Amino acid sequence: MTISSFNPPLRTLMGPGPSDVHPRVLAAMARPTVGHLDPAFIGMMDEVKSLLQYAFQTDNALTFPISAPGSAGMESCFANLVEPGDKVIVCINGVFGLRMKENVERCGGVAIVVEDDWGCSVDAHKVEDALKANPDTKIVAFVQAETSTGVHTDPLILCKLATRYGALSLVDAVTALAGVPVLVDDWGADAVYAGTQKCLSCVPGLSPVTFSERALDKIRKRSSKVQSWFLDLNLIMGYWGEGATRAYHHTAPVNALYALHESLVMLQEEGLENAWHRHAKMHLGLKAGLEAMGLEFAVDEMYRLPQLNAVKIPDGVDDAALRKRALERYGLEIGAGLGAFAGKIWRIGLMGQSATPRNILLCLSTLETLLSQANVKVESGKAVDAAQKILF
Amino acid sequence: MTISSFNPPLRTLMGPGPSDVHPRVLAAMARPTVGHLDPAFIGMMDEVKSLLQYAFQTDNALTFPISAPGSAGMESCFANLVEPGDKVIVCINGVFGLRMKENVERCGGVAIVVEDDWGCSVDAHKVEDALKANPDTKIVAFVQAETSTGVHTDPLILCKLATRYGALSLVDAVTALAGVPVLVDDWGADAVYAGTQKCLSCVPGLSPVTFSERALDKIRKRSSKVQSWFLDLNLIMGYWGEGATRAYHHTAPVNALYALHESLVMLQEEGLENAWHRHAKMHLGLKAGLEAMGLEFAVDEMYRLPQLNAVKIPDGVDDAALRKRALERYGLEIGAGLGAFAGKIWRIGLMGQSATPRNILLCLSTLETLLSQANVKVESGKAVDAAQKILF
Repeated sequence: MTISSFNPPLRTLMGPGPSDVHPRVLAAMARPTVGHLDPAFIGMMDEVKSLLQYAFQTDNALTFPISAPGSAGMESCFANLVEPGDKVIVCINGVFGLRMKENVERCGGVAIVVEDDWGCSVDAHKVEDALKANPDTKIVAFVQAETSTGVHTDPLILCKLATRYGALSLVDAVTALAGVPVLVDDWGADAVYAGTQKCLSCVPGLSPVTFSERALDKIRKRSSKVQSWFLDLNLIMGYWGEGATRAYHHTAPVNALYALHESLVMLQEEGLENAWHRHAKMHLGLKAGLEAMGLEFAVDEMYRLPQLNAVKIPDGVDDAALRKRALERYGLEIGAGLGAFAGKIWRIGLMGQSATPRNILLCLSTLETLLSQANVKVESGKAVDAAQKILF
Repeated sequence: MTISSFNPPLRTLMGPGPSDVHPRVLAAMARPTVGHLDPAFIGMMDEVKSLLQYAFQTDNALTFPISAPGSAGMESCFANLVEPGDKVIVCINGVFGLRMKENVERCGGVAIVVEDDWGCSVDAHKVEDALKANPDTKIVAFVQAETSTGVHTDPLILCKLATRYGALSLVDAVTALAGVPVLVDDWGADAVYAGTQKCLSCVPGLSPVTFSERALDKIRKRSSKVQSWFLDLNLIMGYWGEGATRAYHHTAPVNALYALHESLVMLQEEGLENAWHRHAKMHLGLKAGLEAMGLEFAVDEMYRLPQLNAVKIPDGVDDAALRKRALERYGLEIGAGLGAFAGKIWRIGLMGQSATPRNILLCLSTLETLLSQANVKVESGKAVDAAQKILF
């Protein structure tokens, strides 16, 4: 069998990530590879760190990208911070909270679960009750932007609660970063991980993380070794850390880091606040269009993420068939539901470069056509008109 | 502070990896991102698996790239195969054997070390003695191509020994794959990991792995969960496995996989045997040139890796200063020594696209010039002449 070069189809990515990647980022990634200890590359690493500090709104010295996808970023936080026997409050209101619990247990920690319904935000009162009941809690972990449900949980109060009760806060900001405010220093968050393929609109494969001094202190004082060699921050600090000798730890994914650098330069050019506003405005445009079509959100308005819209699938519509048609005929990817929401919702992403009027109009008119064909009553053109009023 | 786009300098990469990346691979990586569950992408994943089976010379169904660099590939083998208390024979003859020991211990295993001098091959007699002394050994782990020393260890006898004594064999082929024969099925190797940035000449960031049925059997029958969620093959098989439902596990590094696909297509075009021959021939050319210059290898001829040449630094030469000059003036990267070999050797890589007459001639004439300037007696032009005779 002879296999030829792969030429991917052109898609418009409006699922839960990856989002559309700008040609500037793709071009940056294709620049010539240099060595991971090359002085020119080390200089670029320093810039990536500064740009990530800006994106995370933090002065944390240890702010850098893990050389693997978001789930490895999650694992880097738990594997470094959790020691066997540590009590960790894990807030679960979707798939990624469940994954956090798995991480805690695989690190030998004791997970104390605070559960909220899928589609709801994390209830800070329940978290405080759990902290009162477990005064020896070491970490409070939660997801700011639940990619499985499109729910936003405000980290401010949860981080402050953790601090008040002497625990560290650990925040999943994979889908949050650059789409809604992520204010690491204002919150006093201790460990935060994110993804590159969401609102940063970079390629998937890296996970920006940031750690407070309190978190580093716990890591430095561990009585047991971190169970992962690859993710051990005590070792990684020798390569990425402040004033590090840039000692070889692993071979950094050089070209993926070119891409991240470029996407962060683009974020800096747009301005973080402008990026948040753009995501918010695009969400309102999409919302107006979807509602004009008679579609409903699965999440209460006050908890909705602008960048991830969980929309109820109308009765009688074949979920998989419609998404397949959208992909094949219009090159449009929208996301399926996960876990408890499988078959019940679509997840329409408006992340990074995908959060544009052009994408919204394509999405609305595609849905209008395909829903009509599935015998859902949709008034022609109404959705696009409603969106246009807000977008322009 | 405003940070601009990063434009890397043009380098010739003749260190221990990354190696030069062909423009075809860079161009493939810059193709438009699609979703990690897109049917077109799933089709490409299947091709990557087939191409990796070819590169590894195996029919193992579970043959795929880990979404992180080689050190995560190493960890995926140990974290999945080692259960707490398992005895693992670890052969150490350089940096990467040491790293294997770290992995075993962090997984709760008991490492039985078989040590050989840096610059020497693994002694199979010692391994058999260790197996006799420890009949309950579960795994024999060793490095085929020690990137820190340039030493080759033939895996055939070590894999057969492991099998005979009822243990699994675990092979580091990071620098070996596509540079020297890696014959997974002929050897009966049970778990093998490799890197993309060495003789495959792809960008760094992925780690091809392959597991035998015996290895999978041990993983499926584990009594404890794999300590890493991200690297748990029981979960990853749902995305990459044979006949898998392609269930979401983590977001695959889509564009890096485009690059790997293209580099494997190029390997298929060249032919695996031809690639081995090219590496061997280029090594002989470089060797002739280096010896004509009076330089000596740090490794006995019979154990030398063609793709990684450990060369003794002549007395009185300032290692760091010379490498810096080579990089700045000639854009040539050659590798420093690691660990016990730091300051004593250079590591000159001839991997993948870097294994070309053009690179060899640049390297020889650069070394000739810089060594002369460092007052090492070198006869002008002799090295290049000696190399030319073999290369053309």
